[in-house]
Amino acid sequence: MLLLTTIAAVRARREEVSWTGMRVAFVPTMGALHEGHLALVRRGLARADEVWASVFVNPTQFSPHEDFSSYPRDLERDRAALEREGAALLFAPSTREMYPRPPATAVDVAGLTSGLCGLHRPGHFRGVALVVAKLLNIVQPQVALFGAKDWQQATVIRRLVEDLNIPTRIEVLVTVREDDGLALSSRNAYLGAEERLAARVLWRSLQAAAGAARAGERRGTALEAVLAREVGREPLAGLQYAAAVDPDTLQPLESIERRVLLALAVIVGSTRLIDNLLVEGL
Amino acid sequence: MLLLTTIAAVRARREEVSWTGMRVAFVPTMGALHEGHLALVRRGLARADEVWASVFVNPTQFSPHEDFSSYPRDLERDRAALEREGAALLFAPSTREMYPRPPATAVDVAGLTSGLCGLHRPGHFRGVALVVAKLLNIVQPQVALFGAKDWQQATVIRRLVEDLNIPTRIEVLVTVREDDGLALSSRNAYLGAEERLAARVLWRSLQAAAGAARAGERRGTALEAVLAREVGREPLAGLQYAAAVDPDTLQPLESIERRVLLALAVIVGSTRLIDNLLVEGL
Repeated sequence: MLLLTTIAAVRARREEVSWTGMRVAFVPTMGALHEGHLALVRRGLARADEVWASVFVNPTQFSPHEDFSSYPRDLERDRAALEREGAALLFAPSTREMYPRPPATAVDVAGLTSGLCGLHRPGHFRGVALVVAKLLNIVQPQVALFGAKDWQQATVIRRLVEDLNIPTRIEVLVTVREDDGLALSSRNAYLGAEERLAARVLWRSLQAAAGAARAGERRGTALEAVLAREVGREPLAGLQYAAAVDPDTLQPLESIERRVLLALAVIVGSTRLIDNLLVEGL
Repeated sequence: MLLLTTIAAVRARREEVSWTGMRVAFVPTMGALHEGHLALVRRGLARADEVWASVFVNPTQFSPHEDFSSYPRDLERDRAALEREGAALLFAPSTREMYPRPPATAVDVAGLTSGLCGLHRPGHFRGVALVVAKLLNIVQPQVALFGAKDWQQATVIRRLVEDLNIPTRIEVLVTVREDDGLALSSRNAYLGAEERLAARVLWRSLQAAAGAARAGERRGTALEAVLAREVGREPLAGLQYAAAVDPDTLQPLESIERRVLLALAVIVGSTRLIDNLLVEGL
């Protein structure tokens, strides 16, 4: 597997690969790779001739008080994991390589970014949109893969790619979970033993609300109340938001017809965790 | 010359051309082509194997009260002119093809867009940045060519391309002028005979201010005063702005060192005309 750290080297390699007619699938990550990321790599191998990954902890999507500096970093471990899965290339640029000067350009995806995580992480999706646009333009993949755990992120990226006519197909994969339902996340590493147990409350709450929906509850606010009530039962957990929204527009659903996205952000100890569940066929 | 109207057809052709290893130069236009556009096509032929042009009057860069609906359109004449110059492809999409639904994504290039035309055409450069990002992603040219008459636009596009890592080199060509100095512009067609004579005031004013700079005037405000005074001498002309700015940052220059961009927007009759002159080697 090639490990490249400069944009120029990636572009040069991309041009070589283009000449062979090979298709590239791309898995952009912030590193600290887990089974969820590796599932994206495996799907990429089914979709293209080569899988290219990136590891870049993007500073522009963190607020000043967030965990940019403490975010887990272990490039050698990530490199080894990607190589084992059969990735062909890892792009691991420095911040300076990606942002040689502060960007003047802001990419804003209206509507989709105002609620849910966007409400609690101002500027986050602007940072995500910018870095994803940059990475897609650098790698120029035929397909890029994202996990459904970051549903709002995936929705924003789909819209960005559509609006800017970026020639990459976006594919979103179902969330990979631990046996007890906890969604895999690099931030799970922050959890102490008791917190890890408490973190099961996210999946339990989503299941409870999905059960209510399947039992006939059609009011979005009632489903949100189920989520909030379940989270409230866990002493180590604090609710940031509980939402029942349209899976495409991310707007609150007053009355649910066939589909609803249940979404949660919960602070466990001092770790912010998110999760969501798409309930269909109602 | 190929005339294509759909994004899918352009992408398909682009892929075919990529396989041959040919390089593409791109000249995006709003049509009503004049010698300035054709000079871009000729330069493109010197830079790449094929020149692709687009004709698209982009609604998102016009304000409601501006001339979107009356902007001159003559696709058959434009097509013939491009074919004569040796362009290989003309992309002429409908508004619906470019904007199948209202875009949620806004692309904002801060700083560069706040002054000069940006101040008088709110939202204009946001529309330009969006459509240029779209067109570059659709055509994926190795190089794209723009005219220096729209200096601020070219500066915004250079920065957009840098910040988003769009894999296209931007080349800006000197303004093509009539014998009496008037910069070629599709909007010159709006001018009546008397107005056409009055429009010479733009170039005359730029020359006067450049003369003052070369004679030793180093105060930006003094050069702006020269521009304003000269425009004021023409009864049919009304000044919108006169500016002496840094050619790269577009910020006002209090004290000029080696280079200054003199820039003007003038209303002649009811037609808004812009022009500029880069004065170097001071």
